[in-house]
Amino acid sequence: MYKALFFILISILSLSTSLYAQNAYDITDEEALKIILAAKKEAEATDVLVNIAVTDAGAHLKAFIRMDESYLGSIDVAIKKAKTARYFNIDTGTLGELTQPGGIIYNIELSNGGLVSFPGGMPIRNKDNVIIGAIGVSGGSIEQDRAIALAGIKAILKK
Amino acid sequence: MYKALFFILISILSLSTSLYAQNAYDITDEEALKIILAAKKEAEATDVLVNIAVTDAGAHLKAFIRMDESYLGSIDVAIKKAKTARYFNIDTGTLGELTQPGGIIYNIELSNGGLVSFPGGMPIRNKDNVIIGAIGVSGGSIEQDRAIALAGIKAILKK
Amino acid sequence: MYKALFFILISILSLSTSLYAQNAYDITDEEALKIILAAKKEAEATDVLVNIAVTDAGAHLKAFIRMDESYLGSIDVAIKKAKTARYFNIDTGTLGELTQPGGIIYNIELSNGGLVSFPGGMPIRNKDNVIIGAIGVSGGSIEQDRAIALAGIKAILKK
Amino acid sequence: MYKALFFILISILSLSTSLYAQNAYDITDEEALKIILAAKKEAEATDVLVNIAVTDAGAHLKAFIRMDESYLGSIDVAIKKAKTARYFNIDTGTLGELTQPGGIIYNIELSNGGLVSFPGGMPIRNKDNVIIGAIGVSGGSIEQDRAIALAGIKAILKK
Repeated sequence: MYKALFFILISILSLSTSLYAQNAYDITDEEALKIILAAKKEAEATDVLVNIAVTDAGAHLKAFIRMDESYLGSIDVAIKKAKTARYFNIDTGTLGELTQPGGIIYNIELSNGGLVSFPGGMPIRNKDNVIIGAIGVSGGSIEQDRAIALAGIKAILKK
Repeated sequence: MYKALFFILISILSLSTSLYAQNAYDITDEEALKIILAAKKEAEATDVLVNIAVTDAGAHLKAFIRMDESYLGSIDVAIKKAKTARYFNIDTGTLGELTQPGGIIYNIELSNGGLVSFPGGMPIRNKDNVIIGAIGVSGGSIEQDRAIALAGIKAILKK
Repeated sequence: MYKALFFILISILSLSTSLYAQNAYDITDEEALKIILAAKKEAEATDVLVNIAVTDAGAHLKAFIRMDESYLGSIDVAIKKAKTARYFNIDTGTLGELTQPGGIIYNIELSNGGLVSFPGGMPIRNKDNVIIGAIGVSGGSIEQDRAIALAGIKAILKK
Repeated sequence: MYKALFFILISILSLSTSLYAQNAYDITDEEALKIILAAKKEAEATDVLVNIAVTDAGAHLKAFIRMDESYLGSIDVAIKKAKTARYFNIDTGTLGELTQPGGIIYNIELSNGGLVSFPGGMPIRNKDNVIIGAIGVSGGSIEQDRAIALAGIKAILKK
């Protein structure tokens, strides 16, 4: 009996140690880099100039890249798309359907220092479907931005 | 013949020197002044009281003038129109068609510290059609603001 | 008697018309332009790259010019110097003597969205010594900035 | 001989074409990525956890990476260090010597939406010594931050 208890305590301690090294449910810098590089590659392949932002599970900026000649105004939009996606664990395009005049959360974009509610922002989930961060892409059409975001996310799901 | 070659080399060198002094694809202070003076002249000729702002290629304020008795609230609107035009390389009126309720980028005005999406802001292009800055005009009707902005831009395209 | 009354009414009306055209104690756009052009000329003559801002009597931006290759960070500093000078009707350098640690208005720079309390900002007075606006210069040494500001102010005092 | 001349003319033309694609005096996305990866490598080699930001010549965010377990508060500090370095074309540590109580530009940190004036921010120059952007590093000691920033900058100077 005591042995079992001891074993559990050790397990808790070693678990907390590994949590220390890196939260098990947070994106790593290597994953974030992999995502922005894959998204950039997709953007280049489809000839779109975008800004790409990745936030961690805490909605804080983790990685960012601005492609040459992409819109200056897309820096902030890309970051805000990623933050919005993590703030509400939602595809920003889906959020936008609820924020229109008459919508159930009309003008929620005014909260949190400014949200973006059109496509291009998406939560990033790990292989266990746990949200570990978010990506935001801005610079192309909303369809292009969303496709590039998806290409980025897929980069860490491959074995 | 050697003389011709020498002349060309000197030309290249002096070109790179002049690039040093001022980025080749950025508006100069003299151009910016010429633009706000031409826009002001057009406003006076058509009896409109406006604020006129010019930004450089990096969307930073380059020149500004507020006409006597023009709206106090137009100072910020003029500057934001110019910034918006450069942030997305677009006529602000064109942007506004996409940001309405139901539009594909609804409420994007809430990004970048506040954008303005009605007419009066336009990118400034040099004779080679490269964007070197932007102008924003506010104070008159949106048609008047846009016409004044255009008059300003034209001032640097004349030989 | 009626004649006298009529004369008074006419006087009031014409007075209000002239007030309408431009507040008697406010800088005009022509004066503001004259000031930034004279300041720019002085800067060029002394080989200094600066940003020059002029505010009106209400501390609102009236005119602005950024010289090519001057510091990007000086845009905001120049505008804040002019605002600070008008907010407290003071040479910004004089204000700075009072805001140091232990000073009587220590850290007042944190008010009003940010003040600047080193030389380069000065009230602009008309020929009757009434404050009609302020100038702020940033980009050179504090002595250069102040000298350029003074050169600008002098431009509207000449006959 | 005509052949040589022709070759030179073609070179000039292709130069101007490449300037089109990307401003000659602005950092590219590939350079920015190279810099943050080299800085990250240096940080890992010296066992320091940092945030690394790179801005372009217009002081706009170009690339960013946050190392796992680095300070959350260092995201903004790193970005502000890079911006400060470009706003005034200066090593942020050098700026800090001038902003202390009694310094000639005391409290300038309150301008431009907040500056950072201790080491870790530096302008990025190309091989011709022209400033093309800036780097900001935050998370270690100020000596470590500065050394990591330098390691990043050096990455694009190697042949």
